[in-house]
Amino acid sequence: MTAVPTDDRGLLLGDGLFETLLVRDGEPVLWAQHLARLSAACAALGLPTPAPGELMDAARRAVADAGLVAGRAALRMTWTAGSGGRGLERPAVLAPRLIASASPAPPPAGSASLSTVAIRRNATSPASRLKTLAYLDNVLARREAAAQGGDEALMLNTDGHLACAAAANLFWIAGERLHTPRLACGVLDGIMRGQVLAAAGALNVDVIEAAEGPGALGGAQGAFLTSSLIGLRPVVRIDGRALPDHPLVAALQAALRAVT
Amino acid sequence: MTAVPTDDRGLLLGDGLFETLLVRDGEPVLWAQHLARLSAACAALGLPTPAPGELMDAARRAVADAGLVAGRAALRMTWTAGSGGRGLERPAVLAPRLIASASPAPPPAGSASLSTVAIRRNATSPASRLKTLAYLDNVLARREAAAQGGDEALMLNTDGHLACAAAANLFWIAGERLHTPRLACGVLDGIMRGQVLAAAGALNVDVIEAAEGPGALGGAQGAFLTSSLIGLRPVVRIDGRALPDHPLVAALQAALRAVT
Repeated sequence: MTAVPTDDRGLLLGDGLFETLLVRDGEPVLWAQHLARLSAACAALGLPTPAPGELMDAARRAVADAGLVAGRAALRMTWTAGSGGRGLERPAVLAPRLIASASPAPPPAGSASLSTVAIRRNATSPASRLKTLAYLDNVLARREAAAQGGDEALMLNTDGHLACAAAANLFWIAGERLHTPRLACGVLDGIMRGQVLAAAGALNVDVIEAAEGPGALGGAQGAFLTSSLIGLRPVVRIDGRALPDHPLVAALQAALRAVT
Repeated sequence: MTAVPTDDRGLLLGDGLFETLLVRDGEPVLWAQHLARLSAACAALGLPTPAPGELMDAARRAVADAGLVAGRAALRMTWTAGSGGRGLERPAVLAPRLIASASPAPPPAGSASLSTVAIRRNATSPASRLKTLAYLDNVLARREAAAQGGDEALMLNTDGHLACAAAANLFWIAGERLHTPRLACGVLDGIMRGQVLAAAGALNVDVIEAAEGPGALGGAQGAFLTSSLIGLRPVVRIDGRALPDHPLVAALQAALRAVT
């Protein structure tokens, strides 16, 4: 599909969801996990769930059409609430629309400098924990960080607790324990976040899912970002302050080589 | 335009804006005000501003194409950030996309019952004060209100202050003064809100732009919602509690007959 009707609710209202996946040699990585997250997100928004077979067919076609069956690619699956409804109310019967597109995977980004931004995550909205088409705050947060000279945004939530980056989950190491903000802080249940939590367990590293203010980063022994496309990206600077490197980051990167 | 490319940032990320206007006998009502708001919103989001002539041409064409040149119609002008950019960053040169569509104006809705919803307005985001394509929270707030038996949502902001409905501004009368939440509470600078403020001034009614919790509605002598399409809509019930009628509502409705 190369165009959508202008009455699509995804376009008009941000009424829909998406997933971004890494593809390696034509195979979407951690497909089952992305599928499960998309289904759970559909339930949260009251949208029908796409059929797994239809999704996989669309994914393979998008990758093939883009000529990206060899090497690494980025796959985006978009699932809109479909056409219909003037105003906020959805039509009685929804006919969601599926869009799949593949592009060359972004090059490895190196380490990241974070800038704390004024836009905060709104944990009272289910959208703060989902990849929805209403992604403008993320766009604006990234712009705000860039204007401050950062590669990525450090977002707090409206309670002042650490949340995430504009398009990645946040981890830090303190007291030899791994920390990451709780999902309840308004944080996407990132697929790579889940992989890191599992890998840390396998490495016998304690993990704390935290609701803490930015002061918690003051004594951090290291920090990194995660997403399906960037894998694990070390954070070397937060608001101009240098962060140390910690061997756990490299250990986790090694443990997750199969899925990054 | 009946379709947009699937790489449109409005569709993929909610990166764009819209305006909804009342049209009477082919003429958009309060056009200059809507144009000024759209321009200010473009500046807030870092988007180029549409040319007024292009907007008016598209508006007239949409109304004519829909066969709605006589009587009342609803006009929606959508302005997306255009195609481009995998990921959050906008392309270096933006080519925004304009979509205009007209539909029969919704019938007068009668009075409204409000239900307080759990989703709150996030005043830390510029989007809370703009009509952006990332409108999912509004969709979800309306759904939440409907599930509670309400016609419309009563939204607080994340500080617990009164904000607005899912798609309307909120006013209430207390101590013979007119109250409405401050824009800083995460509230759209509604065109009809502005008209009401001006009309109240002309009627010698004091207006308070308030940052107050929902308790402020406890002693309300009346309340109403406003938007360009609904005009002034009386609120008769909030969370099941009946609200009195107040003569100021009818007086304001009469004063604003020319623009509703």
